Amino acid sequence: MDTSAKLDIAQLRINDERLWDSLMELAQIGATPKGGVCRLALTDLDRQGRDLVTRWAREAGMTVTIDKIGNGFMRRPGRNNSLPPIMTGSHIDTQPTGGKFDGNYGVLAGLEVVRTLNDHGIETEAPIEVAFWTNEEGSRFVPVMMGSGVFARAFTLEHAYAAADAEGKTVRQELERIGYVGSQEPGEHPIGAYFEAHIEQGPVLEDHARTIGVVTGVLGIRWYDCVVTGMEAHAGPTPMALRKDALQVATRLMQEVVACAHRHPPHGRGTVGMVQVHPNSRNVIPGQVRFSIDLRNASDADCDAMDADIRAVAERLSRETGLPIEITLVSSYPAQPFHADCVEAVARAAQALGYSHMPAVSGAGHDAVYMARLAPAGMVFIPCKDGISHNEIEDATPQDIAAGCNVLMHAMLERAQVV
Amino acid sequence: MDTSAKLDIAQLRINDERLWDSLMELAQIGATPKGGVCRLALTDLDRQGRDLVTRWAREAGMTVTIDKIGNGFMRRPGRNNSLPPIMTGSHIDTQPTGGKFDGNYGVLAGLEVVRTLNDHGIETEAPIEVAFWTNEEGSRFVPVMMGSGVFARAFTLEHAYAAADAEGKTVRQELERIGYVGSQEPGEHPIGAYFEAHIEQGPVLEDHARTIGVVTGVLGIRWYDCVVTGMEAHAGPTPMALRKDALQVATRLMQEVVACAHRHPPHGRGTVGMVQVHPNSRNVIPGQVRFSIDLRNASDADCDAMDADIRAVAERLSRETGLPIEITLVSSYPAQPFHADCVEAVARAAQALGYSHMPAVSGAGHDAVYMARLAPAGMVFIPCKDGISHNEIEDATPQDIAAGCNVLMHAMLERAQVV
Repeated sequence: MDTSAKLDIAQLRINDERLWDSLMELAQIGATPKGGVCRLALTDLDRQGRDLVTRWAREAGMTVTIDKIGNGFMRRPGRNNSLPPIMTGSHIDTQPTGGKFDGNYGVLAGLEVVRTLNDHGIETEAPIEVAFWTNEEGSRFVPVMMGSGVFARAFTLEHAYAAADAEGKTVRQELERIGYVGSQEPGEHPIGAYFEAHIEQGPVLEDHARTIGVVTGVLGIRWYDCVVTGMEAHAGPTPMALRKDALQVATRLMQEVVACAHRHPPHGRGTVGMVQVHPNSRNVIPGQVRFSIDLRNASDADCDAMDADIRAVAERLSRETGLPIEITLVSSYPAQPFHADCVEAVARAAQALGYSHMPAVSGAGHDAVYMARLAPAGMVFIPCKDGISHNEIEDATPQDIAAGCNVLMHAMLERAQVV
Repeated sequence: MDTSAKLDIAQLRINDERLWDSLMELAQIGATPKGGVCRLALTDLDRQGRDLVTRWAREAGMTVTIDKIGNGFMRRPGRNNSLPPIMTGSHIDTQPTGGKFDGNYGVLAGLEVVRTLNDHGIETEAPIEVAFWTNEEGSRFVPVMMGSGVFARAFTLEHAYAAADAEGKTVRQELERIGYVGSQEPGEHPIGAYFEAHIEQGPVLEDHARTIGVVTGVLGIRWYDCVVTGMEAHAGPTPMALRKDALQVATRLMQEVVACAHRHPPHGRGTVGMVQVHPNSRNVIPGQVRFSIDLRNASDADCDAMDADIRAVAERLSRETGLPIEITLVSSYPAQPFHADCVEAVARAAQALGYSHMPAVSGAGHDAVYMARLAPAGMVFIPCKDGISHNEIEDATPQDIAAGCNVLMHAMLERAQVV
């Protein structure tokens, strides 16, 4: 009996078509003409999405609990319900011109795991829960990862409630309006372990032709504003030797942001995304240039090293050119390594299932980052076409969608234990 | 008699205080709180300025002719009025936040020359004329240097008439409204030689501690739009090796614009003044960067060489990085050397008057550029504080103002001949 049960579990696979169909059905709510989804947090469309997903959960025999920030927990009991649940989840809100997979995949993959267990009448020792977290995207209300952040006590419920959209509507008002304020205090909900399946949102898996990314952690982020001040002057009458061209100094520092990332391999990343030139006139030598710097790396120590590096370069440049350079840290997110047990569970599942796989880091934030503060956590990445996400043309293959869900299931079952 | 007359002429000096006071009085029309002037072309304030200047001219015994584009010619007869006049002039329209001296100085210096000749009863062989040219600044109506451009037939009267401001009012309507459409056909007005006194609008004279710039010519200008196309992607999930960062390639080319200027001394100038990054978001690797390139040099051949240089660099960069780079020429102004006779007349006058002086090039356009197409022409530069112009804090010392006017007078008298 024991041996045959184990064999059955190893052979267990999700229903590819059902998962794909559910993704496509959910994607109809807020569908855009270009094939994407616009389902902003706490809109009527978000309510419709939540209603559909919780209906599916109830049809799968799950109970649904909503907490005060609108996070949903869809639960399949275990044999031993005093054990904390093995949880998975993600979010179903999208960017204004978002895709069908970002977030939605993680929630529906969790539902598909439960449906598959139901199909085969498989009981787990620990309960299994599938969460959908409120407002992960942050495009309507900031901060991003709001529901999981409140749950992990990164900030308070009151802070989240007070956040207002561009029209002045608050999170609290909109949660009440769509009927998703629950009674549970966020965070009063034990977790045994947390897994999240997600499209990679980057090009690495595709570039390496691997199906599964075994995510070892999430990069730390440092955001800076940088200002280089020169002296504006006419492009014509001012000889080269007498210029204080802010852009010429700024562009050297912009080059150094990328060089700095290369000096801190393998995970160092450096980006200048935003540039403002003053007065931004064709025949005026720029008097001031403001630009953003985004530095990322896999550990806080590596982020610190990049911080010191770019500041030293800026100081040297300022000394050499005589132009003041100000660098101000405006945001900082710590690196979040995932728990070795969960990372290994994902790797073992991918290996046992015969999928090509590789270690991966997540450069973007996910709800799993906050969950990792509360419980052992891990993530499963699958490729997305050309690495494109937050875009209506975001795409992933049905094969990879299914593979990631199978890995998620087996990693969860390892933790939840099948008796 | 002959000898004593020559001695008198050599001793002749303008009235410093009168010139300064006239400048300050004209600067009241459109005066700004910060000490500048806002007197846009063909506004009521421009009319008031024109009315004041022509009143002064008539009080100095001059006749006033207006042509169809509103250029004014204030004439002091000579002994031989069949000779073409020795002309000076500039413009009295200003930038929206302009200064007291740009243009105004050239017109009032000409008036002061006439007043000084009147003071001493000095007759010239050729007539003397002082011109004010319509809409030199081009801030309300394009093209710039409109009046002198029509006069020199660089473009047609109809083209200039049709130019409209931001509210849709045309040059023709506004000229008629302020009563400055004359009957003379622009250009039907012979010129013996043309001189223009102007603040330098750059820092060279101040840097060299010289009073007079003997202007040898005006730099040629090439304006380009440049577009570097990469691929936008998330700053987080995209490793350095897989990026197509348009800004990183663009900033290398921006550095090369300045390097190119240094490779073509002594007059090569290279400026990137305007930058647009797409999508210009802190955590998105730029997918496209558009920027302007402004190249200048003292001869068309030098401009051609800089053009070839920057295009070759862009081609190499594009090959190295795989990112397309488009460079499009959007405007081109030929270099304009001044006539040796006029340049030498200015140098001789500065030398004879005992002012420190040096050869200078003009990096900005002036009405004299168009006049140089019609007659021998030259310019007299004086320093302006910190090289700043097109700014309410534009400043020049009364001493330099007077010195430049004395040089103008003696250069003009050399050409006009005192009998």
